[in-house]
Amino acid sequence: MTLKRNKISVIGGGFTGATTAFLAAQKELGDIVLVDIPKNENPTKGKALDMVEAGPVLGFDANILGTSNYEDTKDSDVVVITAGVARKPGMSRDDLVQTNQKVMKSVTQEIIKYSPNCLIIVLTNPVDAMTYTVFKESGFPKHRVIGQSGILDTARFRTFVAQELNLSVKDITGFVLGGHGDDMVPLVRYSYAGGIPLEKLIPRDRLDKIVERTRKGGGEIVNLLGNGSAYYAPAASLVEMVEAVVKDQRRVLPSVAYLEGEYGFNGIYLGVPAILGKNGIEQVIELELTEQEQTALDKSAASVREVMKVLE
Amino acid sequence: MTLKRNKISVIGGGFTGATTAFLAAQKELGDIVLVDIPKNENPTKGKALDMVEAGPVLGFDANILGTSNYEDTKDSDVVVITAGVARKPGMSRDDLVQTNQKVMKSVTQEIIKYSPNCLIIVLTNPVDAMTYTVFKESGFPKHRVIGQSGILDTARFRTFVAQELNLSVKDITGFVLGGHGDDMVPLVRYSYAGGIPLEKLIPRDRLDKIVERTRKGGGEIVNLLGNGSAYYAPAASLVEMVEAVVKDQRRVLPSVAYLEGEYGFNGIYLGVPAILGKNGIEQVIELELTEQEQTALDKSAASVREVMKVLE
Amino acid sequence: MTLKRNKISVIGGGFTGATTAFLAAQKELGDIVLVDIPKNENPTKGKALDMVEAGPVLGFDANILGTSNYEDTKDSDVVVITAGVARKPGMSRDDLVQTNQKVMKSVTQEIIKYSPNCLIIVLTNPVDAMTYTVFKESGFPKHRVIGQSGILDTARFRTFVAQELNLSVKDITGFVLGGHGDDMVPLVRYSYAGGIPLEKLIPRDRLDKIVERTRKGGGEIVNLLGNGSAYYAPAASLVEMVEAVVKDQRRVLPSVAYLEGEYGFNGIYLGVPAILGKNGIEQVIELELTEQEQTALDKSAASVREVMKVLE
Amino acid sequence: MTLKRNKISVIGGGFTGATTAFLAAQKELGDIVLVDIPKNENPTKGKALDMVEAGPVLGFDANILGTSNYEDTKDSDVVVITAGVARKPGMSRDDLVQTNQKVMKSVTQEIIKYSPNCLIIVLTNPVDAMTYTVFKESGFPKHRVIGQSGILDTARFRTFVAQELNLSVKDITGFVLGGHGDDMVPLVRYSYAGGIPLEKLIPRDRLDKIVERTRKGGGEIVNLLGNGSAYYAPAASLVEMVEAVVKDQRRVLPSVAYLEGEYGFNGIYLGVPAILGKNGIEQVIELELTEQEQTALDKSAASVREVMKVLE
Repeated sequence: MTLKRNKISVIGGGFTGATTAFLAAQKELGDIVLVDIPKNENPTKGKALDMVEAGPVLGFDANILGTSNYEDTKDSDVVVITAGVARKPGMSRDDLVQTNQKVMKSVTQEIIKYSPNCLIIVLTNPVDAMTYTVFKESGFPKHRVIGQSGILDTARFRTFVAQELNLSVKDITGFVLGGHGDDMVPLVRYSYAGGIPLEKLIPRDRLDKIVERTRKGGGEIVNLLGNGSAYYAPAASLVEMVEAVVKDQRRVLPSVAYLEGEYGFNGIYLGVPAILGKNGIEQVIELELTEQEQTALDKSAASVREVMKVLE
Repeated sequence: MTLKRNKISVIGGGFTGATTAFLAAQKELGDIVLVDIPKNENPTKGKALDMVEAGPVLGFDANILGTSNYEDTKDSDVVVITAGVARKPGMSRDDLVQTNQKVMKSVTQEIIKYSPNCLIIVLTNPVDAMTYTVFKESGFPKHRVIGQSGILDTARFRTFVAQELNLSVKDITGFVLGGHGDDMVPLVRYSYAGGIPLEKLIPRDRLDKIVERTRKGGGEIVNLLGNGSAYYAPAASLVEMVEAVVKDQRRVLPSVAYLEGEYGFNGIYLGVPAILGKNGIEQVIELELTEQEQTALDKSAASVREVMKVLE
Repeated sequence: MTLKRNKISVIGGGFTGATTAFLAAQKELGDIVLVDIPKNENPTKGKALDMVEAGPVLGFDANILGTSNYEDTKDSDVVVITAGVARKPGMSRDDLVQTNQKVMKSVTQEIIKYSPNCLIIVLTNPVDAMTYTVFKESGFPKHRVIGQSGILDTARFRTFVAQELNLSVKDITGFVLGGHGDDMVPLVRYSYAGGIPLEKLIPRDRLDKIVERTRKGGGEIVNLLGNGSAYYAPAASLVEMVEAVVKDQRRVLPSVAYLEGEYGFNGIYLGVPAILGKNGIEQVIELELTEQEQTALDKSAASVREVMKVLE
Repeated sequence: MTLKRNKISVIGGGFTGATTAFLAAQKELGDIVLVDIPKNENPTKGKALDMVEAGPVLGFDANILGTSNYEDTKDSDVVVITAGVARKPGMSRDDLVQTNQKVMKSVTQEIIKYSPNCLIIVLTNPVDAMTYTVFKESGFPKHRVIGQSGILDTARFRTFVAQELNLSVKDITGFVLGGHGDDMVPLVRYSYAGGIPLEKLIPRDRLDKIVERTRKGGGEIVNLLGNGSAYYAPAASLVEMVEAVVKDQRRVLPSVAYLEGEYGFNGIYLGVPAILGKNGIEQVIELELTEQEQTALDKSAASVREVMKVLE
């Protein structure tokens, strides 16, 4: 028999990691291992147990294991990395990069030790540089190391558009390229409500405001929460990627992918539309860009390269 | 036209309240209003926005509003109360009861002011006494004020049994009467795996340990988390009740109901099996108890009455 | 209390009607009444019972009643009409129109007698003329009488595109205007894969073939089946409309709507993008068309008017 | 990478087979191959295409292939057999058995030729003897050949009980042993509403009538339909088994299993509670029976043996 339960490990047991585990369990994508550092082992076990106890009521069937022992991740099909620190007041960007780079390196070593054939999806910020770090450290082929940013950015964009037009979010789509947040390159001309280009439905100045709000969408939540950052929508975004690969759906999803020539870039992880299937990134989809869009993407890539310099 | 979106308000924007809002939105049970005190208005707005932004990705369509203004709850169909404090080290039980009693009273005043025809579901502990408080303060008929405890207790029991037998939780059922947690009266003879009484599948001493672990199930999570208490399974339990009434399902669910003669009790809220439908508690189901079970239930009721004395 | 189960009646207990009932029950959109003529009462009861018996296994909670008595449809929120004959070999188009016109008239009389405030969704072909007939016969305001054609046409288009590109259907959208099938006006420039216009992904001649296959999509199934016509995708399309109105989703869906000036037409039912919510057609969305598209739409409308002449 | 889409083949493209394919696709359990004889190839292709075209609307992602070529079933994980004839007026039971025996043999040869490691689930009647035939013909180990009967019987029982008590089917369970339909041995003492034994909720004579109606549940549908037999609930029952094995859920489900000593029987397929997981029948669960129950089961087994004699 060739049937088996899939195994998904989530590194980082904070709110995003836990919510990712919960959503993946709700969808019965496989059994889940939620990993945190030894100091947080008990809280991680507590969250995992609480989630499992929701299973009988919500009607899902999934084991969720909280642990600090990477051995428990053995033979994972997919590993999601949410670990790392968030930028705190007074912390320089370079400090953030270097701290999370260290986390990525040590986490990657543990992952590949126990799951040499897995597929890795990275959320940790700055996501382009961190995905690059995991790629290099793992030695995995590029299609098996992917970053998440565009699903979240477009989810926010779609929400704001749905509110603007008082329409169901189910019929709104968005499209972004490039880096996450401030560096995001929105392709509004590829964004629609019920298939109708948004430019025909929303005045330019309102649309600009929505784009601007999307760029700062993470900060908006941070400011409101006062303490901590968004985790529901980021987790949902991760799980959409996990589902696409676990079910080999060949979804077209904005993904942080390693480029070797696409869009004129080389040796850099950047947000682009890609086909996600059982092999991870099955294909990067290339689009003709307007001059303005290419300029914005160049700028976004330059900004990613700036961060990558700190890695060395 | 008589079609309308249902409106569900959740009082208390902490982890349990937020997760309740999220699960109800995922199930598209209606539009959600998440209410907290003015001091927490921004974090509540932040959580609500983050959840809404997960909608386009998870494919659900629901407004979730974070607020501290009860006017926003106007014309709710169902209101869920998760507000209140948890017992802290050094806090006497009576202090806890009196503090939460005050919260229930003020919250209830606000609820009935804006939604005089709603149905109220209470989670705040000690749940039997708090549901009683809300019942008295609201002046609502008894069928429209319900407490939650047994769905959560049985969810934990079912989880532990499924792990013991290495079976799907989908095929395990549990049954409890009486108060929450320590006061819980488990009816193991009415608990099954695939319809087979558990007593035939699990040795008595193992079953006793599972019951004991269930009683202390809330404490187990508190101890693991170190800070805070369970919220995934409690929220799931609340949402199962909300779904039953919103969809008029006539589910048979363990509910904290006001008794007037049933099981020999009068003027007290206690955990009993009940039919939940569009009118709330449609019927309390009475069972013949063994002498031992009745004794345990009497003890549980006495313990609830002790707490109720503090209310006066 | 204002909570209630929605009631959805489906007129016509053939394969499409039955599948519509089943899908609506699976989604727990409300209780279902499946109506057929007295001669078919028993088979209709048989199908309804068989579906209800699937409920415990599939986990849905819905009453499905098979009947030939319209009294059972009393106070329906939504009524779906699938009744009528299909064109048989040797039957002229005019015979088809006149036969189904009679069916629409008698069915509508029964519907409005018992559910004067309901919303009606029509599938019977030729759908534009039949929806017009129901509109006139019911005396209902235009927003409460809607026809289905475009969801089905685009569903087929999306399927063929997904197969062409080997991508998930979840990321493919389509867009049509005008009449059903042969008269359909596809707006390929508003059709996308992952937000990318299909014209950039599929060569023109392949795209033309897909459009042509879509136009004849109903006939393709008829030819394969040998006996009878498609019912899975038509039923799914109807249920998407039912869900949009029952949940007041404000979806943007291609709908057969009564036009009074929109797109330059008056007094005719035609396929256009519309917002569907609790009031039925909340708004027709107007688009600027290219000259070529307007010409095609004019032709499609003329063809509908030809059929409408037969109604008199 | 070890990720892959599961492959499920359904033999027999009639209503039950088609509905099984559709429900499995809706649940995204894998890609589906629907096989019928060459004469029915086109209708089977038509049904498959119609179902696939429902995918974009219902939001499921699954290939469904209609074919008469067993090569298309290559490397299936699970194969469901619905093929065979139904008993027609004037047909002796022995004729039915011998006709379907031939079908089972030829079908099994084709299945094992292309999927030597698959798991087979049989629905064809008389199911106990037909499952035995497939078991013998395939040479597969017993855990990989399973029959369906008890899920359907209990689904009907649960429906009737829910209607009797006016309760949600979600809270009703049933339990049967032995053969299908008339030979069914209902264990009413193991059947519950909300965990409460039905014997405490429904008077004995009403319960007897429900049991009797369940026994004849297939005939009730046949009589109502006038032409053909039930397919919604049978298909749902098959899909529940498929889901249990594909997701390795370790569900406790009534299954037609090969007995080697269990319940005192040897070398016979009979309905018993079993644990279903990735290996098929992971374990038969043995229960102590009352004398009356054992007598009924003996009778049921004798009746199966009678049919098995015809096989020789």
